This record gives sequence, C-alpha cells and structure tokens, in this order.
Amino acid sequence: MDFTTLFKAPESEGKEKHVPIIEILKNHGGKNETLVLVTVGKEVPHPNTIEHHIVWIELFGIKKDTNQVICLGHQNFAPTFTEPTSKFKVKIDDFKALGALAYCNIHGVWKNTLDL
Amino acid sequence: MDFTTLFKAPESEGKEKHVPIIEILKNHGGKNETLVLVTVGKEVPHPNTIEHHIVWIELFGIKKDTNQVICLGHQNFAPTFTEPTSKFKVKIDDFKALGALAYCNIHGVWKNTLDL
Amino acid sequence: MDFTTLFKAPESEGKEKHVPIIEILKNHGGKNETLVLVTVGKEVPHPNTIEHHIVWIELFGIKKDTNQVICLGHQNFAPTFTEPTSKFKVKIDDFKALGALAYCNIHGVWKNTLDL
Amino acid sequence: MDFTTLFKAPESEGKEKHVPIIEILKNHGGKNETLVLVTVGKEVPHPNTIEHHIVWIELFGIKKDTNQVICLGHQNFAPTFTEPTSKFKVKIDDFKALGALAYCNIHGVWKNTLDL
Repeated sequence: MDFTTLFKAPESEGKEKHVPIIEILKNHGGKNETLVLVTVGKEVPHPNTIEHHIVWIELFGIKKDTNQVICLGHQNFAPTFTEPTSKFKVKIDDFKALGALAYCNIHGVWKNTLDL
Repeated sequence: MDFTTLFKAPESEGKEKHVPIIEILKNHGGKNETLVLVTVGKEVPHPNTIEHHIVWIELFGIKKDTNQVICLGHQNFAPTFTEPTSKFKVKIDDFKALGALAYCNIHGVWKNTLDL
Repeated sequence: MDFTTLFKAPESEGKEKHVPIIEILKNHGGKNETLVLVTVGKEVPHPNTIEHHIVWIELFGIKKDTNQVICLGHQNFAPTFTEPTSKFKVKIDDFKALGALAYCNIHGVWKNTLDL
Repeated sequence: MDFTTLFKAPESEGKEKHVPIIEILKNHGGKNETLVLVTVGKEVPHPNTIEHHIVWIELFGIKKDTNQVICLGHQNFAPTFTEPTSKFKVKIDDFKALGALAYCNIHGVWKNTLDL
C-alpha cells in the first residue's frame, strides 16, 4: 500500500470542510508584496475544539521546468485558541504550482493544488 | 546554567534585526477578525540565504489571572523562498500578553513580549 | 495536477538515499516498550550540509478497520548538527500500517509505507 | 514583562512531572553513535490524553567558546498515540551544554539544561 493515496482531495469533501484553499494575495496591505494564504474552512469554519481540530498546514511549491518540490513552510495551530489559516510570504515567480496539506486529528490529511 | 538566559531581548539588537515584532491587526481585510502578526526584520529585512536565515517563529499567549502560558502556534520557513513573517488568527481577549520567539541559525533565539 | 503525485517512492532512489526506512523496535533497551524508528540514509548516509540536507520527517499511522490517517509526529533537524533519524514511542497495535514522509531541501518529498 | 520568565524550571515540579530530562546515550545500540534522549515524565509518565498532553519538545545546544545557541531539533507528538520522548542524533562535541524545552497544553513551557 502507498499510504499517501489516503490523503483526501477536494472531491471527498462532506459537510465539514477540510480542503486547504490556496489563494494568492497580490499587493497585500497596500505594500508591494505577495502573500500565499492557505485556509481550512474558508466558507464553513472547521470545528476548533480539543477533540476535533486542524493541527497543521504545510505549503509546497513546484518549481518551473524542474518539477522540484520545495516545502515552503509548516505551521502548527493551538486547538480552541488559533484558527487554521496560514500566510506565507513567498516569491511565487519561481513556481508553476503550489500545493498544500492540512491535517485534521479526526479526518486525516487533505490536499489541494493551485496551478499558477 | 539556565540556557534560556541566552535568549536575546530587544536591547541586544545590532545592525541586523532579529527581534520578533508582535502586532495586533484589528478588523483585518475589512473582516471582523483579529490577527496577530509576528515579523522578524520589520524595518530592515533579515538576510534570507541558505547560510543565514530565520528558521522558525513561535507565538505564545499569557492567560489573564492564571498566568498560564499557551503555545498559540509555531511556523517554519524555507530559506531563500519564504520570508520570516507569521500570521496567527487568535482570540486575544483571553490573554494579558503575547510572547514570541524567533530562531536565527547563526544568531540564536530572540524573544519579545507585547502587553495587551 | 495533484502535487502529491510528485512525492517519490522507493523505486525512484538513485545513488543518494532519501526514502525514510520505517522499523519497529520491540522491547527496546531491555524495556517493555515499542519504538518506531524512521531513518533517512540507513545504508548510505544522506549529505548533511547547509546546502543539502533532510529538513524533516513525518510519521503517520493507518488505523485498522477505519483507514483513518493519524499524524503520529513531526521532527525537524538542524543541518550539519543533527542526523535525520527519528524515534517515536507509539502504541502500534491500533494500526495496520505506518507511513513516513521525509523532505530533502534539494530532492523533495519521499514516502514509504510499512504494513504491520 | 519578559514572558520567558514564565518558563518553569525543575524546582517548580509538582506531582505531575513536566521537566524534560536530557540524557546522553553513548555507543547506542552497540553502534558507534551518540544520541541525545529527551524525555518528559521519565519517572512518572505524564498524562497523555486529548485534554492534557505534551505537545512538543525542542532541543538546543550551546556552542563552546561562542555561547552560540543552536536549535538542534523540534518534535511534535500526537496526543494519546505518541509518548513525549525524543531522540536526536547529534555530534555533541561542539557543545558545552544542551537545553530542552517541553510544552504541556495545560501547564505551559518547561525548561532544563545539561552541562556537558
């Protein structure tokens, strides 16, 4: 078995929303900077309790030409205190796609890809 | 020896800036949400090379009344690709102060506290 | 594109060894405890330089019956100082398989699965 | 206030044990390798429930001569599944002391130092 086949894609979504949504924020805050925003539960907030919460988000970039996979960052959250949304200040011009993983302690690992 | 006495405070700053600056962003993005922004190198960007970079930022909250220390999150960055700035979506009403640690692979651990 | 299809399996190995090898250590150290050992570069050590190193290892468990994916832990290493080997003290009876990811800053994410 | 003054030292221990104990394992497993073992709850296991558990351990080294603080690694655990013990394969000859932090979601950050 390849355990990564159990990572869930957007089409597995049920009533609760787990897929990490990747957005590019250009000229964020009136400054000449680009941020990558990754959010779990953008439309419908995911539960954030001790028993059921998003533990971490990881962001990856896929390099143009080489297909090299770069881990751009990893963020852990504190259940009940911190909501599962991450911002990474990344130079995205190097990449042809961004990928994110998000981990729910009950419903496992969810994945998403944004082509640039 | 207590090794945490080697964590550096704002008064140890030299030409390069390491202290994690903690800011509260109210009504961020026009939405009714409060974000905690932690930045290393707010005024003068810290180097971001393979040889010299900020590896991670950690955010803590100090609870009102109890002085309980809560780790609100931890974020790792990717040298050369990702700049050392973190946003945490936190309910800050529970806390009387926020603290941050930032780690530079050359110049060690830096600390800062924001009283709320 | 699904970016996780770029995670590399054992059959992609070249001269340098990246796949995280998962081993079960029973009665470890003469004590009645079971450890899960995850090693990158078990036979041939992976380079450990500032420019080229293993940044982290993640361990997952796949629950019996439910196929639930549990993130059992995540460990970061310090290039040049710390070798990429992790030990996790896990009750493995709950799981039918273990999975590991390892991230090399040059060669991307590598995956492996051990059926129990 | 300096929030790191709230990190707790061994003398703050009560009935539950939180201080990360640092041990050097020489010639570990019959091999010519040195491991640094960090354990919370070595004598009396710390609770490991969803509501009350050790979230992470961080290991630091203090360089000889320079007092440079190096973060040697960070390990996260999964409540109920993974016990709070970490092994780091470190070349300790560079260091005059090792330090560890451990974080309990209820009782905060605990610290310990081992002079080498």
